[in-house]
Amino acid sequence: MKRIESIQNALVKHWKKLVQTRKERDQSKEFILEGFHLVEEALKQRDSFLTLIKREDVELPSHWQTQEVQIIEVNAAVANEIAETGSSQGVFAHCKQPQSGETLQGHWKKLLLIDSVQDPGNLGTMIRTADAAGMDAVILGKGTVDPFSPKTVRSAQGSHFNIPLIRGELQEFVRQLKATNIPVFGTGLTNAVDYLNVEIEGAFAVILGNEGSGVHPELLSQTDKNVKIPMYGKAESLNVAVATGILLYTYKSK
Amino acid sequence: MKRIESIQNALVKHWKKLVQTRKERDQSKEFILEGFHLVEEALKQRDSFLTLIKREDVELPSHWQTQEVQIIEVNAAVANEIAETGSSQGVFAHCKQPQSGETLQGHWKKLLLIDSVQDPGNLGTMIRTADAAGMDAVILGKGTVDPFSPKTVRSAQGSHFNIPLIRGELQEFVRQLKATNIPVFGTGLTNAVDYLNVEIEGAFAVILGNEGSGVHPELLSQTDKNVKIPMYGKAESLNVAVATGILLYTYKSK
Repeated sequence: MKRIESIQNALVKHWKKLVQTRKERDQSKEFILEGFHLVEEALKQRDSFLTLIKREDVELPSHWQTQEVQIIEVNAAVANEIAETGSSQGVFAHCKQPQSGETLQGHWKKLLLIDSVQDPGNLGTMIRTADAAGMDAVILGKGTVDPFSPKTVRSAQGSHFNIPLIRGELQEFVRQLKATNIPVFGTGLTNAVDYLNVEIEGAFAVILGNEGSGVHPELLSQTDKNVKIPMYGKAESLNVAVATGILLYTYKSK
Repeated sequence: MKRIESIQNALVKHWKKLVQTRKERDQSKEFILEGFHLVEEALKQRDSFLTLIKREDVELPSHWQTQEVQIIEVNAAVANEIAETGSSQGVFAHCKQPQSGETLQGHWKKLLLIDSVQDPGNLGTMIRTADAAGMDAVILGKGTVDPFSPKTVRSAQGSHFNIPLIRGELQEFVRQLKATNIPVFGTGLTNAVDYLNVEIEGAFAVILGNEGSGVHPELLSQTDKNVKIPMYGKAESLNVAVATGILLYTYKSK
């Protein structure tokens, strides 16, 4: 087993940058996953998997299939360099980012579009929710935070490997969806109908937006219909990931 | 306006402990809110409001009603002591915890019960969601994290002031609810029916559980029925706050 003990090692510096900077992730198309659950999910993706990194005191679970996997053992100093939090489990996967291209597939009928979501945890939870709700893909507008940041990866709980993530210009995707007769529902408070008052026939796309300002007005003007989730109590709004869950599960079940 | 410049000041030490320790919050029944949005919400609660704390460089919005409010100005060093994050807005409210007692009210018909949720952000989002969905109260089991911690308060976005928070032994509350003919639905994967396959007639209580282990089995054995949200994709589960949103909004709309 290969072993690295210096934080000056070039590979360690690369891992650290992958954890800390979007630039490194975008340029290399790689990312780091941390913790037993996520590394176990990553091990099922042999096309994406590059290296399993374990701190010297960590025992790998005996049921993990690691025969053809490169494992690098590191000391505590190196593990600390790449750990996201102080309470690290000391096990990491260095992976290629699953690539889903930048175009819609003809057989996709149910989509989540995300406009300018800024909180990495919210974005990860939305990706996880779209996966759970059986969406065919998630489309990320240019203003949205990096889906491969450590916090987003952690809150998505492995769904990065389960559902295509497409990145691009949302207005262009909305045009394409409408051209293929997939109804597009924006979310907003003005000119919006109750989310229960829409007809769904199999295919749909829903746009969720920024935590503070919502979906961009220009995008809302392009949709087939805009919907809102009523506030029955005194809260002013819902968390964007919670709203995503309510909408996707309601429309999936219609 | 009173001014404090020393982090050794007894009041500053009390504020800092309120931010950092559950013990101080539990003993004093007070808490700290941070940021313009939350302080504005707190200002509407004159019964709970104790002190508005502002960093010396912060300008209070002119529409805030602060005539009868004690305002204390502090320097940057003091503000840093009580700030939750490095990017503090420099404005805080020191408040009494809204007290909701420990017993159910006879007119409550829709309730969220929370068993051993451990992530403060999840708990706050669940409180906010219960408020939005028009629940009458949230009942927190003993194993759940402190609802008045800074992270929980931040993610609840002011809903602490909108909905009663009851704390106690969930098994006892479940017995009481059943005795008053409010059906109690647990959430779990075994012996559970699809969440859409239940009849709701106005009143209901839903129990959500720990992020990893779910609702305690003994509690699940006491419920009228246990429900599950199907996984249509490959995700193993939903975030607990997202699941809360799906269930409460579905049952509220039935």
